[in-house]
Parts: sequence; structure tokens; C-alpha cells
Amino acid sequence: MAASAIERVAIIGAGNGGCAAAADLVKSGFDVRLYGRSPSTIEPLVARGGVEYEGVLGEGFAPISVITNDASEAMRDAHAVLVMGPTHAHVSMAETVARHLKPGQIFFAAPGHTLTLLPNTLRDGGHEKPVTCESATLPYICRKLTPIRVKISRKAAKLKFAAFPATRTRELAERLLPLFPAISPVASLLDTVFPYTNAIHHPPALLCNIGRVEATGGDYCHYYEGITPSVGRIIDALDAERVAIASAFGCVVDKLSDYFFQIGYTNEEGRDGGNAYSVFHNSEPNRWIKAPPSIDYRFFNEDIPFGLVPLTELARLAGVQTPASDAVILLASIATGKSYRDGGLTSARMRIDGMDIAAVKTLLEHGYE
Amino acid sequence: MAASAIERVAIIGAGNGGCAAAADLVKSGFDVRLYGRSPSTIEPLVARGGVEYEGVLGEGFAPISVITNDASEAMRDAHAVLVMGPTHAHVSMAETVARHLKPGQIFFAAPGHTLTLLPNTLRDGGHEKPVTCESATLPYICRKLTPIRVKISRKAAKLKFAAFPATRTRELAERLLPLFPAISPVASLLDTVFPYTNAIHHPPALLCNIGRVEATGGDYCHYYEGITPSVGRIIDALDAERVAIASAFGCVVDKLSDYFFQIGYTNEEGRDGGNAYSVFHNSEPNRWIKAPPSIDYRFFNEDIPFGLVPLTELARLAGVQTPASDAVILLASIATGKSYRDGGLTSARMRIDGMDIAAVKTLLEHGYE
Repeated sequence: MAASAIERVAIIGAGNGGCAAAADLVKSGFDVRLYGRSPSTIEPLVARGGVEYEGVLGEGFAPISVITNDASEAMRDAHAVLVMGPTHAHVSMAETVARHLKPGQIFFAAPGHTLTLLPNTLRDGGHEKPVTCESATLPYICRKLTPIRVKISRKAAKLKFAAFPATRTRELAERLLPLFPAISPVASLLDTVFPYTNAIHHPPALLCNIGRVEATGGDYCHYYEGITPSVGRIIDALDAERVAIASAFGCVVDKLSDYFFQIGYTNEEGRDGGNAYSVFHNSEPNRWIKAPPSIDYRFFNEDIPFGLVPLTELARLAGVQTPASDAVILLASIATGKSYRDGGLTSARMRIDGMDIAAVKTLLEHGYE
Repeated sequence: MAASAIERVAIIGAGNGGCAAAADLVKSGFDVRLYGRSPSTIEPLVARGGVEYEGVLGEGFAPISVITNDASEAMRDAHAVLVMGPTHAHVSMAETVARHLKPGQIFFAAPGHTLTLLPNTLRDGGHEKPVTCESATLPYICRKLTPIRVKISRKAAKLKFAAFPATRTRELAERLLPLFPAISPVASLLDTVFPYTNAIHHPPALLCNIGRVEATGGDYCHYYEGITPSVGRIIDALDAERVAIASAFGCVVDKLSDYFFQIGYTNEEGRDGGNAYSVFHNSEPNRWIKAPPSIDYRFFNEDIPFGLVPLTELARLAGVQTPASDAVILLASIATGKSYRDGGLTSARMRIDGMDIAAVKTLLEHGYE
């Protein structure tokens, strides 16, 4: 393999995921440059000269050679550029990256699951034949405790990984494996889109508790008290739609109960119940998590436009009906006064409208080459 | 007018409305016969020999000459038969009545708003040219405090009243006016269907609090704490659909905020806010009403299949879109596992499927004559 080994890494995004990756990769011996858009995020890290960490990596301090809100400085001689931020920030992050990305630099996003949004944004930024790769989820379960300290409570055991075009998946997986040993190649970006389950359970659980969130300011446990048996049935309906859409595209995904058991989010009783209520009622890691203080929250704002909406748009393209998902999208949009479909990741925005399944697969396999 | 004055009245249903009407009509000098299907409802009233009452009629005891679970006995020589029970019991009540109804007996339902369901049930029971009449709401706000005691907290100031066929409305209104002085004739049964607002606010308010109802057993105030600003926006969306459907049929209905002010359910501030949240947050009569103990409750079980479903079915017939109402029906059906549309008052069950607006109006105007 001719490509040089990755030594220098630019991390785009200095939030939870970006800081966790910075700590992990510094610890693994990589030369990390950390970019954050907002000076208020960056300044405390600059003052400290790196990031403090605790959790499964142990407790310590990771010095970072470059911490900046100048993307060109972070990316200048990096071998890989890692976009680590919420999916609703993908366009603006990719626009920033596009201005400085050089041939040969690897573009990796975690979490991905915005299908062709990233390659298209790079294309709009002047990269005719964009190459991107992504993992379905963030490589860490992590949370910043302070502006300079991140708690990493788990490293993902398996990172579903695909490239655009898919012909590049194997090569890029091999090059990124030293950074993220959990990388596990899948057939195409569809296989990083469909496993995303937050879109399936966050929106209906919040919808069925709108009155409670607004009356109490979220003073109850979201998963344990908020997902009751009947709320669970709505989540199950959305999950069945997700599995059916994936199946129409020839992708096999685990149903929620199996998936949550695999990633350690529920126990055997939760899995064997086979429904969302049993999954969440037996989810020890989620048990004490409080509900959001208002419905102006990522459970709607991110998981609907960049989670449920693209699922239903792919469903339309495949001729699969998604009445339950459509109903949740509509009622949440009415409740918040935000049109989540218009503002979300539609087929038009993914630039796959008018395509059939075969055309989408061809695009994902071969890209714009 | 040739018809004799009403002296003897059979009341079909010995629940809240039936007992309130019995007390009121006995007090007004009518000879009342009270029918209840269930022996356990009837027996305590038989033992007492009538019904105790309190509230706006004062406090007292109304002796009732006949209290029975034999409908033929109750109806034998009655001038008018008053069906007073929930809309989801209309078919079984009308089937019972049909077996004993004689030519010349007035058939009146309160509340009505099941369109052609009652005349069709009478027709199935052998009455070729059925005549029915109804008011949009119950004539009383009332609640049985014990099996023999009813509290009447308000008499309706205005009872929208229509007959089937509408050509009979004026005559029947005049004959029933001594019983219910609030009767106010409207053009047709459509004008008793569209003003029904429980279907607009009960289902979405419960849907947006499913988790809370199931986690707390309904330990919060349904209207005051359950209808928060965002829940109110969903109610507003359903209300706008209701007004649009009515308009397509040429009926003018007040929007929820105006209507609730007119009937004394909200104050000027509530009305002037112009939205469901302001209406309910300023509704003194509703302020302390607790939420239901479970979602297996009339807010879904009655108001969806016999309230929202017929509205959306009329909308389809008129070519009006009702996405918000459809979404609420679907998600509530998933949550409870009951198919409220299949079990509800569909166009097929109203026997108006395939008709256009003009055909429906002709049927309502002239009936099966």
C-alpha cells in the first residue's frame, strides 16, 4: 500500500466527541490539531494546553500541539481530517473543511449517517470527486464535564465503517484502523445510516411527554419513567418501519432490542422482552438520565431532521410506507413550530430524489468518478 | 299544530346525563320513565324511588314513576324517547329503542353528533323512514356523585338542535322546547357534528402526556398542567382542520377559543389569547380536573372513534386534508393497540361513502322519504 501512515490528525469540532478523540489519539501517540469554531470553546483549552480526561482511558492530561479556531492551521499538514460533531452541523463543518482539504487527506466523520450530504458539500466546495468515510456512531460514549475536561465512559466495541465511494472502504478502513481499532467495514453508507436508532426512540418518547417536559422542566427520568408501555409501542412501530426500509435496500439491521443488548445498553431481560419498553425499562446505563428541560432539544432538533426525515425519504424512494414516522415528524413539527422535514435531510438535499434503489446504490458504490 | 303536547318521557340511559335529565324533567312536571341497561345501575335508583339532585336546580329528590331495565316498559306510552348516553353506545341504545319505538314517538339524542348513525340503526331495526333529532351537547354539565345522586353544575344556555330529516327540525324543536328551553335550531345534523370540540382537544392532550399518565396514574391536572404551550399548538392544528372541514360543507363554526368563551369555559384573557393554551390555562371550570388514570379512557376510546374519525372521514369526502388529525388517530391507535379508525364512525358506517357534499346534504335534508 503506497499511502503513508497517518501521523498528524486534524480534529474538527472541540465538543464532547472531538475532545474525547483528541485525548485518545494523543495518548496513542498521534500528533493532534484540534479545531473549534467558537473562540469560547477553544480559549480554555488553549490556556490549559490540551485536554484533561477521565474514565476508561484512566485519568490524565493530553497535551495538544495546536488548538485553534483557524481550520487551515489545524488541517495544514494533517494526514487525516476527522469531523466530530452533531449531524445537523455537518454542512457547516464540511464547508469549512472543503476550503482547506488537500488531495490525499482523508476525510472521516463520526458519527456519520447523513448519507451523501458530506460528499455533496465537499463537491460544492470545489472537490469534483469527493472521497469521504464515516462510522455510524461516535467512537466514544463521552461527555465534557468542564470546558477542559472530558469523561470517556466507554469506547465503542464496533464501529460500522463505510466510505464514499464504497470502492474505497477497505483501503480507508485499513489506514484509519490504527486510530480506531473498532472499525468494522460494511457494504456502503446505507449500512451506517440504518443502524442509527436514536431517531427511532428519542422523538416519540419526547412527543408522548411534551406536557410533562413543559410542566416539570424535565424533572423525571427520560428513559425509565418516560418510556412507558404505550410509549414503547410507538417506538416499536417506528423501529419496524426502520427495519422495513433497510430491508427494501437489501440491508439487514438488528431490531432495537437486539441492538441495545449487543452494545450493552440493556440486559437479557430487556432483550428477551423484544420491545422498546422492556429494552429501556431494563437499561441500567440510561436509568437515571433526566428528561430534557424543554422540547427545544436535540431529541427533536437533531434526531428528527437528520434522523427520522432521511429514513422516511429513503422509504419513499423505495416505496415503503412509514405512517408512524411521518406522524411523529408532523406532530413534533407542529408542537415546536419548526418544519423538521423542510429543514431536514430530504432526498433533494441528499441529491437522490428521482433515483431508484439501484441508482442510489450505484452512486454510493462508485461516487462521482 | 296537531301533535299532542309531550307529557310522558322515556329516558334511555341512567348515567350522568340520564339522571340529570330525569331530575330536571320531573321537577318541570313531566312524567318520567327511566331505563338503564345494567341492573346494577338501576337497582339503587329503584330502591330510592327516584334520584337525588344538587347544584343549579337546588337540592332535592325527584320521584320517578318507572325505573326499569325493560325498555318496552319505559317506552310504552311515552311521547318522547330521549337517548342520553355516550356516542360510542349510540348503536346499542338505538337498537334497543328500535324494537319498541312506535309511530309518533319522538326520538331525541343528547349528545348527538354521530350524523346518520342513529337513523341508520333505526332503519336496520325496521323503521323504513326514521326520524331522529338531537342536540350537539348534553343539556347539562353533571356528574353522578353516588348511584342515586347527581350533581348538576350547569344547564347549557344554548343547545344546537337538528332533526333527520332536516325538514322536521322546526316542528320537533317546537315540541321539545318545553323540555329543553335552550334548544336552538340549526340547518342540519352537520351543524351538530362540527361544533363538537372534545374530539379536538382530548386526544392530542392525552397523546402528549402518555408517558406521564402511565408513570403517575394521572396524578396531575389534565387541562391546567397537561395542556402546555406546545400541546396547545397541536390542539390548534386540529381545530383549524375542524373549521376547514365545516367550511367545506358550508357550515360556520366558532374556533375553540371563541366557543369556550361563549359557553363560559374560559375567560376573556383565554379567548383573546386565541389559542388552545390560553383557553385552557384560563379555564376556571377545568382547572382542577385530574388526568385519567390510564390511556384506556374516553379521551381516546370515545373522542377518537366517534369524534375525530368521523371528522376526518367527512374531510375526505370533501377533499379536505387533515394531516394533524390523522397523525393523532394513528399514534393513539398504536399506543393503545386499538384501531380507532376501523372501530370508529367511518363514512361506510355513516353510509355516506361515495357521496359528494351535495348528496350528503340532500340525504340530511330529506332523509329516506
